[in-house]
Amino acid sequence: MISSPRIGLDIGGTKIEGIALDTAGEITARRVVATVPGPAGVLGASAELVRALAAESGAQVADYAGVGIGIPGQVDRDSGTVRNAYNMGLSSLALGPELSARVGIPVRVDNDVTAASIGAVHVMGLDGTVAYLNLGTGLAAGMTVDGLPIRGTDGFAGEIGHLPIDPRGRACPCGQFGCLETVASGSALKAHWPAGGEHPGRTLNEAVAAGDADAKLARDYLIEGAANATRVLGLTVNPGAVVIGGGLRLLGDPLVSGIRAQLREWAAASEFIAALGLADRLRVLPADSPAAAIGAAIAINE
Amino acid sequence: MISSPRIGLDIGGTKIEGIALDTAGEITARRVVATVPGPAGVLGASAELVRALAAESGAQVADYAGVGIGIPGQVDRDSGTVRNAYNMGLSSLALGPELSARVGIPVRVDNDVTAASIGAVHVMGLDGTVAYLNLGTGLAAGMTVDGLPIRGTDGFAGEIGHLPIDPRGRACPCGQFGCLETVASGSALKAHWPAGGEHPGRTLNEAVAAGDADAKLARDYLIEGAANATRVLGLTVNPGAVVIGGGLRLLGDPLVSGIRAQLREWAAASEFIAALGLADRLRVLPADSPAAAIGAAIAINE
Repeated sequence: MISSPRIGLDIGGTKIEGIALDTAGEITARRVVATVPGPAGVLGASAELVRALAAESGAQVADYAGVGIGIPGQVDRDSGTVRNAYNMGLSSLALGPELSARVGIPVRVDNDVTAASIGAVHVMGLDGTVAYLNLGTGLAAGMTVDGLPIRGTDGFAGEIGHLPIDPRGRACPCGQFGCLETVASGSALKAHWPAGGEHPGRTLNEAVAAGDADAKLARDYLIEGAANATRVLGLTVNPGAVVIGGGLRLLGDPLVSGIRAQLREWAAASEFIAALGLADRLRVLPADSPAAAIGAAIAINE
Repeated sequence: MISSPRIGLDIGGTKIEGIALDTAGEITARRVVATVPGPAGVLGASAELVRALAAESGAQVADYAGVGIGIPGQVDRDSGTVRNAYNMGLSSLALGPELSARVGIPVRVDNDVTAASIGAVHVMGLDGTVAYLNLGTGLAAGMTVDGLPIRGTDGFAGEIGHLPIDPRGRACPCGQFGCLETVASGSALKAHWPAGGEHPGRTLNEAVAAGDADAKLARDYLIEGAANATRVLGLTVNPGAVVIGGGLRLLGDPLVSGIRAQLREWAAASEFIAALGLADRLRVLPADSPAAAIGAAIAINE
């Protein structure tokens, strides 16, 4: 199924999730460690995790063709450099070469959402044109055709979180107004529902059920914005499946049913939108799926 | 440069443009005939044009690997069927098989904007990720990666003309409100500047120069909408070049400078948008380029 065994890491602001894959594409080891911020911390924790995954699989690190990494921030895939990954204390780090020097096998670095889009296709057994919509702290998408990602010229493909969809909308930190991310993201939930605290997604459904009007409004914005992002993806790449990923997918049925209902309302008003089949094509990434780590591993020899 | 000589036709509502390509990718014959509406008319004129292009190239039709067609409407590439190409009197026609039976070589049918996006890459010597923005009666885009088009699951990729960008915008015939096509298209020009007649693009610049306020407003909407469409393409596929095509590109410098100025204004307010480099990446398809016919010919064995 894949040409060689490889290791994948999904490096986030709070944890690093790692997997080892065999040539059947099956996971032989899976581990999560806490992120240690800063270059030395990230490199040390990552190298340690690579060794642990190999050992857990009954192998040596040298038995693997390479390590694939998914990480937020601006990634230069050719040089393996990551910039502006501020939530893990990295302003600029030659992550690929530095980690490769520590573990002795090639390391390929990818944007985390792109990696997750590749992994989602693998995990969910999809093919053709697939869009992956990541609803996390921010909003971003990944698009794949037959499992291969559309990366764009500078690695910015899928950054639809900064697409303005309402000229009269809220100011976005990016400098624009009414961006999709200002309505459909974890940061938008915080802005619209300050009482929800640092992790508003965890208690949002309960608060809505208890009659909290701000929570309801925040969730409605999220649902409409996510439906809008799905429509954007539908009209640009016309996917056969749209997979919802990211932490906010754990809002579950209220979110997904809400997005589907909004898409159906739009389809009822427009045959053109109906032809895109978006409501029926909406899928959710399984809750415990290490999609970004898997996708990063798959993409190492691309 | 291409594997075999082939013929390409761009079938539009008023004319059919045809070219023959040799294996160097050079045009050996080029002809334009009037479109005869209806199935028999379109098939007859197309077959006649194929024979004329072969003769003009000093060859037989059988010397060509096939005919590629670009046509508006909904195209099923597998069956070669075109639906809803109303401006040439076709509600449903098995154009590929029917024309193939008349000329004796394979015929592949493509959406005209997709074909033009492939042709633009070829004609302009582009590579990597390229977006093509067609400003004609409607608004649509084509996206290519290394010359290969993103077609989507049902052939609807690039239909960003029906992306709503202002919830308070004008009603679109598609059933939605504030679609890009309601501000940046030939049909939008007519709606905003009724005095411009059937072909408002032909006299728009002169009317603006003469102080016509409606013409000015219509052109401003067009410019802002086209810039918005460019931003949509930038945020989804992050192209290295955005090529403006379609009849409205003949508005020339006032249009293109206007789009660039709008993109620069947005980039000045947002480092994120600035990083996409859109103003500098904007290009215009040459005025006399038969891009759709060339692209359709190139795509026959894809």
